[in-house]
Amino acid sequence: MRPMTKLEADFNTALHGHALDVEARLAMLADGYLEPSPAARLVEAMRYGLLGGGKRLRPFLVIESARLFGVPAEIALNTAAALECVHCYSLIHDDLPAMDDDDLRRGRPTVHKAFDEATAILAGDGLLTFAFEILAMPGTHVDTSIRTELVLELARASGASGMAGGQMLDLQAETRKLPVASTLQLQAMKTGALIRFGCIAGAILGKASPDSCTALDRYGRTLGAAFQISDDLLDAEGDSAVVGKATAKDAASGKATLVGQMGIAGARQELQRLVTSATDALRDFGDRAAPLAEAARFMAVRRS
Amino acid sequence: MRPMTKLEADFNTALHGHALDVEARLAMLADGYLEPSPAARLVEAMRYGLLGGGKRLRPFLVIESARLFGVPAEIALNTAAALECVHCYSLIHDDLPAMDDDDLRRGRPTVHKAFDEATAILAGDGLLTFAFEILAMPGTHVDTSIRTELVLELARASGASGMAGGQMLDLQAETRKLPVASTLQLQAMKTGALIRFGCIAGAILGKASPDSCTALDRYGRTLGAAFQISDDLLDAEGDSAVVGKATAKDAASGKATLVGQMGIAGARQELQRLVTSATDALRDFGDRAAPLAEAARFMAVRRS
Repeated sequence: MRPMTKLEADFNTALHGHALDVEARLAMLADGYLEPSPAARLVEAMRYGLLGGGKRLRPFLVIESARLFGVPAEIALNTAAALECVHCYSLIHDDLPAMDDDDLRRGRPTVHKAFDEATAILAGDGLLTFAFEILAMPGTHVDTSIRTELVLELARASGASGMAGGQMLDLQAETRKLPVASTLQLQAMKTGALIRFGCIAGAILGKASPDSCTALDRYGRTLGAAFQISDDLLDAEGDSAVVGKATAKDAASGKATLVGQMGIAGARQELQRLVTSATDALRDFGDRAAPLAEAARFMAVRRS
Repeated sequence: MRPMTKLEADFNTALHGHALDVEARLAMLADGYLEPSPAARLVEAMRYGLLGGGKRLRPFLVIESARLFGVPAEIALNTAAALECVHCYSLIHDDLPAMDDDDLRRGRPTVHKAFDEATAILAGDGLLTFAFEILAMPGTHVDTSIRTELVLELARASGASGMAGGQMLDLQAETRKLPVASTLQLQAMKTGALIRFGCIAGAILGKASPDSCTALDRYGRTLGAAFQISDDLLDAEGDSAVVGKATAKDAASGKATLVGQMGIAGARQELQRLVTSATDALRDFGDRAAPLAEAARFMAVRRS
């Protein structure tokens, strides 16, 4: 295995630093708002799916995009936590036998394996619901118009026109060949929409100008596309022990991926183009955007 | 079959009148905000689960509780629609093979029967998400603090401490005997929380006084409990052709119900006590609350 580059090491350090804060906030919110429920088994399954580590990339994007507008991490953390709840719910449901049927996630049994299917369905439902509870809490932002906008944008990113719709298209793609444009649309919905939300959430929290919103929207879209290609490359080339989940599943299941459609070299080239476009979108923010630019460049070199 | 009493006929007429408006609003929201999604199969399944008729009792409660404070139905309809989205999502997920495993709902195949399991899971997820999208829309109320409070209360009613938690406890109750107090708590979470939300949503939309909020909260809690007992009585005594779903399932599955614990006569007596308490809570609202009082009295005589 090749040694880690400085870029990888630096970005992993930055990511890990925020991840500790995110983990602490998620645990605090779970203690305060889930633990009082009499449904102990459900709360346990929700905690298992939520607090199992993970890179916490989406929360990182919320915190760093908010910082562009002078919003302290302390203020951005609830929104970051809410986004991570939606991400974790989607993993729990996607792993179900009726969906992607995965037994392993982040190196541990998936929720329906550690508990059972019914509990996993409810834990996903509960985390999705909890995300909106968190966004609507007074502690998330003093301004109700900002909380409402966050709810609206996260719902749009997660629903039928976003992540859930993308998962539907992905399941259907297993049984039919898609043109490249449809694969891109599917991925923009399935993975891109939540990543984009992470980036525009900072603009919402920071009451950003329309120009800044447009720039973060462009950054978020290209970063999301880059993330998906890098994920597909990991599946095609990666070591399951490092990646922490089963690899080489896409080719086996017939999933629509750009790697399958463009080949590994073509996908690598497209990934590089997207990384350049993403960092380009950040130009007007200057040095403050260095961590976000690093996140984009990291997509081209990540190994897990 | 005994003929319908005047109370039943009157209440059914009132319910049906609102249901037509609710159906139209749900269809309008689906047309405007779900239809544009490229995930056509998902949208179709969501519409199937959402627009399949149903009594629309929860929307009725939103509209009628809002009217107590002079809020026109036109303003209450989005909130009513959002609540119905959550209710329909819960039916779709509860019917899944891993949960209650039902093939029939409102006299039609359940969503996983008409489509497939993966699509049903995603359709439920999509409807839950759509509920929060609707509540956060500017068209739901001009005041963002009201929209935020609606999101917060609906999330609390639906999540681990509310409906989802109640469903978890209900699944666990199949394999162990519960004391009456635990059955009451389970039912207050599983069915009561959404019904209570329907009643306090009107108070939120109408910026009601603390006294009015307390009264509607009490009405909502007792109505929810009454609804659950009447549902259990229907299961124990009802005709599946009239009820529109399988009956006598509770005894077969070992579900915790008050009918099982108190017997039919005891449950009927408790139902009557709750109906009296619910109508009593409405006293200070005078004649304007007549439709809500009728809803409570209806619980003692409903046959579907």
